[in-house]
Amino acid sequence: MSEDIRPGEIAVTLPEKFDAGLYFIGRIRTPWKERGECPKNARGSDAVCTIELDPRYAAALDGVASCSHLVVLYFMHEARRDLVVQVPRHGERRGTFAIRSPVRPNPVAMSVVRLIDIHGIILKVVGLDCLDGTPLIDIKPYFASVDSVPEATVGWHKKD
Amino acid sequence: MSEDIRPGEIAVTLPEKFDAGLYFIGRIRTPWKERGECPKNARGSDAVCTIELDPRYAAALDGVASCSHLVVLYFMHEARRDLVVQVPRHGERRGTFAIRSPVRPNPVAMSVVRLIDIHGIILKVVGLDCLDGTPLIDIKPYFASVDSVPEATVGWHKKD
Repeated sequence: MSEDIRPGEIAVTLPEKFDAGLYFIGRIRTPWKERGECPKNARGSDAVCTIELDPRYAAALDGVASCSHLVVLYFMHEARRDLVVQVPRHGERRGTFAIRSPVRPNPVAMSVVRLIDIHGIILKVVGLDCLDGTPLIDIKPYFASVDSVPEATVGWHKKD
Repeated sequence: MSEDIRPGEIAVTLPEKFDAGLYFIGRIRTPWKERGECPKNARGSDAVCTIELDPRYAAALDGVASCSHLVVLYFMHEARRDLVVQVPRHGERRGTFAIRSPVRPNPVAMSVVRLIDIHGIILKVVGLDCLDGTPLIDIKPYFASVDSVPEATVGWHKKD
């Protein structure tokens, strides 16, 4: 965890104790070994990545093959958690909840992926942009009826 | 946490220790005080719900007002975590990762919500279906470019 802070960034003191715990239920294998190599966003890459599920949870994949897309939650375990205002390298100063930076109080990332193949506890997917070895937290079916909002806008983003 | 298990359901032994911790960063206020009252899915309700953020993180909301929609992560703290195969009350037997049930190894729920209003640390949103008092984990901007997949399908769902 880096303790560097850029001009304009704001850190807070985090609570002394956690309120709940997470199990790492698998690992994500990607071509990217360092932060600088990761695509700027997941649509920037067609790379097929691999999700390796802990065999303990194998039975939980029953029915997943019928999903064209999945919601994947994973844990950005290398990110610091105390910044509430951030200044991205090539961006403006923003509140942490207005950006998708891994740096946040709970560094749980969410990606929508296309399912290419599933074989035993190994899933091949397109749409991830995380570091190789990132811990997996959850897999969910993606329902267009509730998860897809094509008309959604982010005001600050339109200026880019 | 209920220890009831329905015929056909499968429980596993969870790891002895957690791998990471979560902070509860706020609370979600909804009209639903008991599980049975919650809408079957979030699009089934136009109810305006309230997100109350812990004041510690107030600065992290800078820029959020410009988002039409948000990704909200929250913790289903009353759900058991050991079922890998489930039999919903009105559904077929399925693997946990093929359904959106709160019962899962890491009961972190993801909802896409429409932002109605934001005032200080209070957000008014539409699109939640959780119990009143549910702990908040994260707020992210929803980017249609990566998060919206209107053509996504779930095979087992089409039979319904």
